[in-house]
Amino acid sequence: MKPSHIEHIGIAVSDLGRSVELYEKVFGLKCYNIEEVTDQKVRTAFFMVGQTKIELLEATSPESPVAKFIEKKGEGIHHIAFAVTGLEDGLKHADNLGIKLIDSNPRKGAEGLDIAFLHPGSTGGVLIELCEHKTK
Amino acid sequence: MKPSHIEHIGIAVSDLGRSVELYEKVFGLKCYNIEEVTDQKVRTAFFMVGQTKIELLEATSPESPVAKFIEKKGEGIHHIAFAVTGLEDGLKHADNLGIKLIDSNPRKGAEGLDIAFLHPGSTGGVLIELCEHKTK
Repeated sequence: MKPSHIEHIGIAVSDLGRSVELYEKVFGLKCYNIEEVTDQKVRTAFFMVGQTKIELLEATSPESPVAKFIEKKGEGIHHIAFAVTGLEDGLKHADNLGIKLIDSNPRKGAEGLDIAFLHPGSTGGVLIELCEHKTK
Repeated sequence: MKPSHIEHIGIAVSDLGRSVELYEKVFGLKCYNIEEVTDQKVRTAFFMVGQTKIELLEATSPESPVAKFIEKKGEGIHHIAFAVTGLEDGLKHADNLGIKLIDSNPRKGAEGLDIAFLHPGSTGGVLIELCEHKTK
């Protein structure tokens, strides 16, 4: 499942409006979409930087994984996502190598992608998401 | 200074060999270079993922910023780097907007790039590096 590119970088923020302004003003980036992912209890703002999206993540509930992350570690980089093909086989491959999976099977993420997370305890503290665009 | 792409993602690791093996075996990536950056007291392993490098960073001294990061937060994503043109003007622009700069002027980083860091206290907890390929 060799990744073709970094699909996105997820960044946990406590105030989405303030952070959108930061990326727009300081870096001249343009927020092209704001989307709520109810499953993850987050509101997400998207910027495109070359092949990669910056996804700012604001919790919509204290039970959101993003709220818990900020409580524990403060605002900052939350996860990175690799664009892959063959996500299901990739998960099996990782599982066979002893990598702990958060999602044993793909599920639907933002922007209609199939996604799955690997556990940071198995990947050197990095929360890694795998994403696949299904063209079917 | 609109970034053209994510130049790299820096990941703090405590055992470079073990982490190189992880990225090679699990994701099928190929480490194409290992370089010591004495200035930053790190050994760095590079992987290419589309336009973006994964840079694994292992401290070569307890005084390395990476050693201090791991001591405080554990292994994990350390910084992201935007590829920009006009780095000096970009730093002035950020400074004018009240962004705290770690480097007021560009300095030499890995792979011969001109680099400068913005302070995470001004950028929502994200350590952001700006990189410029000087063609002169």
